[in-house]
Amino acid sequence: MKLVRYGPPGREQPGLIDGQNRLRSLRDVVRDIGPDVYAPQGQRALRKLDVEALPLVRGKPRLGVPFVGIGKFIAIGLNYRDHAAEARLPIPSEPIVFNKWTTCISGPSDPIEQPPHSTRLDWEVELGVVIGRQARYVPVGEALAHVAGYCAVHDVSERQFQFERGSQWDKSKGCDSFGPVGPWLVTADELPDPQSLDLWLDVNGRRMQSGNTRDMIFSVAQIVSYLSHFMTLRPGDLIATGTPAGVGMGQKPPRYLQPGDLVELGIQGLGCQRQTVLASARKVAQDAAGLVLATKT
Amino acid sequence: MKLVRYGPPGREQPGLIDGQNRLRSLRDVVRDIGPDVYAPQGQRALRKLDVEALPLVRGKPRLGVPFVGIGKFIAIGLNYRDHAAEARLPIPSEPIVFNKWTTCISGPSDPIEQPPHSTRLDWEVELGVVIGRQARYVPVGEALAHVAGYCAVHDVSERQFQFERGSQWDKSKGCDSFGPVGPWLVTADELPDPQSLDLWLDVNGRRMQSGNTRDMIFSVAQIVSYLSHFMTLRPGDLIATGTPAGVGMGQKPPRYLQPGDLVELGIQGLGCQRQTVLASARKVAQDAAGLVLATKT
Repeated sequence: MKLVRYGPPGREQPGLIDGQNRLRSLRDVVRDIGPDVYAPQGQRALRKLDVEALPLVRGKPRLGVPFVGIGKFIAIGLNYRDHAAEARLPIPSEPIVFNKWTTCISGPSDPIEQPPHSTRLDWEVELGVVIGRQARYVPVGEALAHVAGYCAVHDVSERQFQFERGSQWDKSKGCDSFGPVGPWLVTADELPDPQSLDLWLDVNGRRMQSGNTRDMIFSVAQIVSYLSHFMTLRPGDLIATGTPAGVGMGQKPPRYLQPGDLVELGIQGLGCQRQTVLASARKVAQDAAGLVLATKT
Repeated sequence: MKLVRYGPPGREQPGLIDGQNRLRSLRDVVRDIGPDVYAPQGQRALRKLDVEALPLVRGKPRLGVPFVGIGKFIAIGLNYRDHAAEARLPIPSEPIVFNKWTTCISGPSDPIEQPPHSTRLDWEVELGVVIGRQARYVPVGEALAHVAGYCAVHDVSERQFQFERGSQWDKSKGCDSFGPVGPWLVTADELPDPQSLDLWLDVNGRRMQSGNTRDMIFSVAQIVSYLSHFMTLRPGDLIATGTPAGVGMGQKPPRYLQPGDLVELGIQGLGCQRQTVLASARKVAQDAAGLVLATKT
């Protein structure tokens, strides 16, 4: 199943995409696409539905984040060899784990707002993994049984915040609008092998990233197992599994996103995203206490 | 006001500590200590209550996390000069920001469970700041108006996970039980100056940390303002503001927590915590995929 939430921000309705790629409403079936719906039992109930009997949704409503209940937004760094190389960082011997603040999450085609003190705004297409069943100290062989499904994630990143404002990346990865998710939550039964998916990203129509999840250093199963040794994974937790080569900082010369740029990205079977980059309306300067928030120029 | 939640894990009831240090129930007044209660309007309503008319709670129930709605658990690294020195890391020129996974949050006297692959479990007493009003691009001078109150936080840390398993600290800071919070959420009106609070931590009755929040490199107001330039802070977000010197890795020789150890800590006006360290019942070995989860010995 391809689960979606459609409608204006904050007022999304639950729905699904049927076999003919049509949007149908789940309003009369579930309250929202929450953990009760995408957990194993919820999925079993949904599969019994007569999809053809669900009302078609007219028009082309905005699609929002395709599910709710994202308690943690966990991200894996440098999980494709070619990307580690372009970032000039060593191939990790175990997963690098960082965080995207949950307030960064946005719909798949909502704009990316460049913070006013940002100068190196960059893109990263990633396979997103959605937990459906609580996972704690799970062996690799049992890890995928804890996955509800998959979605496309854009791990928007600010490289100056990441590499020149302290050692920790969390400052650079979770600004508002830095986490477009969707358009669909595709349930795991439709994607039995998450390690053979093409993923791509274009900027202004030019192909910048083109990879396949088979080139991950750590597989989805390894990542889920690994993380479950450092925290309890709960239904709704979302894991961004790393990006292949082709990000802006890897270009020669580097090329970063500017207001007006159009980013389109997609993953095989998981749909496409499309974001415009907006300049922030804010102005930021050095504050009275001397903390430099504006970028030095 | 000193707001609390009391009762068994998962079934806590709302309450407060009155002027005579007695626990009184808020069950008939509010459903829980959520953002509606600790946001400015909720606090105004509570202040009109006749505290003496609230029912006294008999016995000595467990105290849980004193509030709910913690969407983000943000932490500041190396925010006391003496701690940066003992960690042999440079004094930061702006706040270092990392994450504690929200699943790590536990009550102030719940045990700390040492992960089975942990060898360097360490302590850090910290002032916790609770957001009460949404904050985005807030100047330093207005920052404290967005704070609902304060609480003690134990930023439990695993140094081997932090410094030898990749560059990012998030792996080491958010294991289950690594975030005791409370016992009280003390509303900001009771603590007009968060920069003059003694804080201390004992291990097995021996004083290990002894500091004062006046020695922070970045003040609470600076931290709230700064973070609000990198993310939207929402009611319930919790910020751990760094620890003074005296952590285990700073001892000569280093001294880490072991199962059976007793940690007690407190902050002036914010109450005390008391945790026993438990060994995990789990056993972890190198997994089939070769990811070393067990520590090399």
